[in-house]
Amino acid sequence: MKFSIERSALLKAVAQAQSVVERRNAIPILSNVLIAADGADVQFRATDLDIEVQDSAGAMVQQAGATTVNAAMLNEIVRKLPDGALVAISYDPAAERLTIAAGRSTFTLATLPQQDFPAMASADFEASFTAPAPLLRRLFDKSKFAISTEETRYYLNGVYFHIATTEEGPVLRAVATDGHRLARVDAALPDGAAGMPGVIVPRKTVGELRKLLEDDNALIAVSVSETKIRFATPTITLTSKVIDGTFPDYTRVIPTGNTRRLEVDAAEFAKAVDRVATVSSERSRAVKLVMEDDRLLLSVQSPDTGNAEEELAVAYADERLEIGFNAKYLQEIAAQVDRENAVFMLNGAGDPALMREGGDTSAVYVVMPMRV
Amino acid sequence: MKFSIERSALLKAVAQAQSVVERRNAIPILSNVLIAADGADVQFRATDLDIEVQDSAGAMVQQAGATTVNAAMLNEIVRKLPDGALVAISYDPAAERLTIAAGRSTFTLATLPQQDFPAMASADFEASFTAPAPLLRRLFDKSKFAISTEETRYYLNGVYFHIATTEEGPVLRAVATDGHRLARVDAALPDGAAGMPGVIVPRKTVGELRKLLEDDNALIAVSVSETKIRFATPTITLTSKVIDGTFPDYTRVIPTGNTRRLEVDAAEFAKAVDRVATVSSERSRAVKLVMEDDRLLLSVQSPDTGNAEEELAVAYADERLEIGFNAKYLQEIAAQVDRENAVFMLNGAGDPALMREGGDTSAVYVVMPMRV
Repeated sequence: MKFSIERSALLKAVAQAQSVVERRNAIPILSNVLIAADGADVQFRATDLDIEVQDSAGAMVQQAGATTVNAAMLNEIVRKLPDGALVAISYDPAAERLTIAAGRSTFTLATLPQQDFPAMASADFEASFTAPAPLLRRLFDKSKFAISTEETRYYLNGVYFHIATTEEGPVLRAVATDGHRLARVDAALPDGAAGMPGVIVPRKTVGELRKLLEDDNALIAVSVSETKIRFATPTITLTSKVIDGTFPDYTRVIPTGNTRRLEVDAAEFAKAVDRVATVSSERSRAVKLVMEDDRLLLSVQSPDTGNAEEELAVAYADERLEIGFNAKYLQEIAAQVDRENAVFMLNGAGDPALMREGGDTSAVYVVMPMRV
Repeated sequence: MKFSIERSALLKAVAQAQSVVERRNAIPILSNVLIAADGADVQFRATDLDIEVQDSAGAMVQQAGATTVNAAMLNEIVRKLPDGALVAISYDPAAERLTIAAGRSTFTLATLPQQDFPAMASADFEASFTAPAPLLRRLFDKSKFAISTEETRYYLNGVYFHIATTEEGPVLRAVATDGHRLARVDAALPDGAAGMPGVIVPRKTVGELRKLLEDDNALIAVSVSETKIRFATPTITLTSKVIDGTFPDYTRVIPTGNTRRLEVDAAEFAKAVDRVATVSSERSRAVKLVMEDDRLLLSVQSPDTGNAEEELAVAYADERLEIGFNAKYLQEIAAQVDRENAVFMLNGAGDPALMREGGDTSAVYVVMPMRV
């Protein structure tokens, strides 16, 4: 194998691939990236056995071939090469060494045989469709904060990506919850997605996927089976196992009968919550909300350290209500609001609250109250 | 106590004071900052019993008085208040509470009595002088990287700040070493400094001091005794205990007979060292330097991972020399070079190397070789 490649193209491909590689690996080859040159392209592939990412970059290939080298080290080396450098990469099968040369620098790295590199079993995908990057970005960005980190409830350690039926017809939906708060985000159903099975996309996959969705004009090819999901741009393919479990019936968690309507400026609200929460002790960051006559009083009482309160002008016309929430949860859902005011739909002090952006019900959030 | 103060002035004073406060304190009041209002100023004082910092800010004082509150919390609260806010602070001695109000936010914090706040015993300083901030900044910035972190050699855990005699007469000198490398930085002796006893300024004090030295036009009042050192700007006074120990005789560590002269572009050299060191295993980052005929070959051999080499055009006219160094140490001393090329004075492969900037001997560095 022998090829030349521009440093920035190489860095982009290697960085994307190596980010799925786990720092510590019992199996040495899982620390490596597979480099395969053929035709006018070089493929870079990395995996942690749950996620596989393959990245393609244009190069001047003089001799086809393939090998594997340590992904983190290759990434470090390429990162430190001068911007604009042309990088010559060649593999010597006799010495089992990969040589990387640029300018007056030469690196010779140990390799492991490409045939030992694990390939993810190919799947028969039950549905394949194309979706614009911003659509997928919104679905995952607005839901991922609510993913549970509790390992015992492994079926909550991801985003439930599925087709749901609404009054307006079927939608593509992302749901995440940790039992304390829930995010439900809908998007228009792309052509061909109707037969898609519902899958739980793991947290790490959501993170890796995010890097494929930066370009507003990109179209992402999505393929889904019961066990795997694949996202592909013209140059990058991310294939991931999905979580083998059943996502709980979230619909009964979403309150439908809440009638008390509180409308707040989301940014002002988040800042006020942040400020009053300063005085609370680390563990229970409970904020009390008292609303009455278009006024909202936020307060925190902490016996050891002190108290804080702040008043906001809001829209609230129902009867006086006192209710407590975890400050962090309130800030996180307020941060999802982009364009309009945050609208809370409340019931009693012991009932879950629903939050949405203005009148838009395509993204709704549920947060459980706390006793204050 | 009652006063109003502009948020940014308050933030600056509180941030400076609270940074000396240790996160965990067995003695509760050491987590607090003392606030004392009197005349047209408010004083903020914090200590970890080794360092005391006192900061003064202009305020509209309506009622004099003093109390103490948690420094980290006060800092957090002030940081979160809107930019430009006018902050009203008042202390209620009956309730033992401090109230902080700005806009529609009100915070009430628990206090501890000001008379319980420890004051550092005043010292009889043996020398007092004034030095421009850039002079002190250079002395400490160029030496602090070599401070030892080994707690058993506590007398190396700081910068030895003293008067030294040179061929050109007495100088103000900063020296730090960890036994592997050494930095020696000289400055012109300020008026009145001649009688200063040599003191070891602790690492944390050097870090806190750095914040007082940002302003190029500031004059810093320095006072030194056998046990304490004080640095003061018109608004901030930093008093610190010095390390109770004897700094070793560093002069015998500095080679004087090295005759082989290697001159390199410091930035190019540091980058090349960084690149070749990428392949070495974490612990022993040894870089081999081979110099001959105005060429320097840097190389790293790592049996497990691979090899790296890079060639640099340099000025070297002596006979061929092979010598190894810790990569990190080479990068750190190369980073001290600001204006000219780095000049290494070498002897044999087992002898310490001396490095300076061009012909300037007011800052010299010594680094021990490694077997490669």
